Amino acid sequence: MVDCLIVGSGIAGISAALTLQANGRSFEIFGSSSLSTKIEKAEMIHNYPGLADVSGKQFVARLKEQLSAAEIAVREETVGGVYAMKDKFIVQAGQNSYEGKTVVLAAGVENVRPIKGEEEFLGRGVSYCATCDGFLYKGKTLAIVCTSARFEHEIEFLAGLAEKAYVFPLYKGAKIEGKNVELLKRLPSEIVGEKRVRAIVVGEEEKEVDGVFLLKESVSPAALVGGLEVSGGHVVVDRHCKTNLKGLFAAGDCTGRPYQYAKAAGEGNVAAFSVLEFLAGR
Amino acid sequence: MVDCLIVGSGIAGISAALTLQANGRSFEIFGSSSLSTKIEKAEMIHNYPGLADVSGKQFVARLKEQLSAAEIAVREETVGGVYAMKDKFIVQAGQNSYEGKTVVLAAGVENVRPIKGEEEFLGRGVSYCATCDGFLYKGKTLAIVCTSARFEHEIEFLAGLAEKAYVFPLYKGAKIEGKNVELLKRLPSEIVGEKRVRAIVVGEEEKEVDGVFLLKESVSPAALVGGLEVSGGHVVVDRHCKTNLKGLFAAGDCTGRPYQYAKAAGEGNVAAFSVLEFLAGR
Repeated sequence: MVDCLIVGSGIAGISAALTLQANGRSFEIFGSSSLSTKIEKAEMIHNYPGLADVSGKQFVARLKEQLSAAEIAVREETVGGVYAMKDKFIVQAGQNSYEGKTVVLAAGVENVRPIKGEEEFLGRGVSYCATCDGFLYKGKTLAIVCTSARFEHEIEFLAGLAEKAYVFPLYKGAKIEGKNVELLKRLPSEIVGEKRVRAIVVGEEEKEVDGVFLLKESVSPAALVGGLEVSGGHVVVDRHCKTNLKGLFAAGDCTGRPYQYAKAAGEGNVAAFSVLEFLAGR
Repeated sequence: MVDCLIVGSGIAGISAALTLQANGRSFEIFGSSSLSTKIEKAEMIHNYPGLADVSGKQFVARLKEQLSAAEIAVREETVGGVYAMKDKFIVQAGQNSYEGKTVVLAAGVENVRPIKGEEEFLGRGVSYCATCDGFLYKGKTLAIVCTSARFEHEIEFLAGLAEKAYVFPLYKGAKIEGKNVELLKRLPSEIVGEKRVRAIVVGEEEKEVDGVFLLKESVSPAALVGGLEVSGGHVVVDRHCKTNLKGLFAAGDCTGRPYQYAKAAGEGNVAAFSVLEFLAGR
């Protein structure tokens, strides 16, 4: 069991990781090898103290170098859920699960509005993680909503397992092939069912499915962590980045505006210090 | 009248300034041309996202370049007081006073414990600012407590005005000359008086003085800003860096631990966004 599980590899997550590393604590950090799509896409950053007028790409390059120098490796696994146990946390990521004494949630903000029914059926037919839950749908019918070309390999993985896959790309120029794949241009408006997902609503039509995969950069914190207090889509934290769950801290865009790099760096740092205090039993 | 008066040129103050500049707002930033003695003295910084293993000196050099590129000039004037008026603020700095619609207090933390009587007699014989109040003591007797060689020119300025000056340097290797200067190695324990300062207590002895100048890097926020809510020496702020005084925001070390660069950068950024919201009348 590690001291801390860091969910997210944007600036908040990296800031927390650097501080925990400097303090000799063990941790895992989950995210993407490109660190953060948001930073990467930023044209020019003018107000980050210490870096004058860097482009997002330059910023990401610097962060990668810094992580590599500090011997921190980001696990490129999508986090499907965070579970608060009695005296530890379990993070389900990819096909693995990880145990940690604390969690820093630095999962960013959803840039896509959730679909009606998404949170209601999460774990009952709705999943955010192809590698975690894909095998449950072998030979079945799936709907796959995808926000970025980055996840096309996950679509292919799922389509390879399923008998039939309805794919809803939310970006331009999607290229997904396969005899059993039906590309839909219209977006689904609702996920419906009773105990489990039964169908996805597209326009006037209901398409019967066994499961719905939502492949996106970030998911709502409430969906990711059961029992977490949120308000207006943001995690409720105090000035020490404490959430309502003891031992679970949150930092960066997921705690609310301003959605700024400096703010995220600061909160990641504060969250790491709260982790250190928590581990010291204070 | 400018949009904002920023008190302090450490990372929190700089972060606020960069964000206000990027948003086209007018401001003054008060501090030192060396920006921050605390940063400058830092041996190596390992956990500031974007800058891998920089020395304090390198960090300060980068910040100076960044300010210069952004055409931001730090006013090297010691802030003697911040006054909340009905619908504006007045900052007294050096021999000048400045008007602003808002204030970001980023004054750091006192690294020297206040002397007994210091806050009680502030404005009644106790001053933090040689250039502000020095002329009031022409031909009189002064005690001067000084924490850094950086302020020796202020001691000389004061000693040049006064008839007699007791100087208490809190650092090694002090070199202050002058016939009317008496250097004391022992520290004063208390400032005493009735309506105004009457004497300074050194060991068993009381030395009669007309005024006491305390020349230090940062002063307690409560002493600097009348009516400001503090707790344990720190300014009480919410997650938006709001204080109990409307339009006055605080950021960085003065708001409490962790005393970290990333945290200061983050809070300076958040405080600047709160200023923008305040100015927009929200």
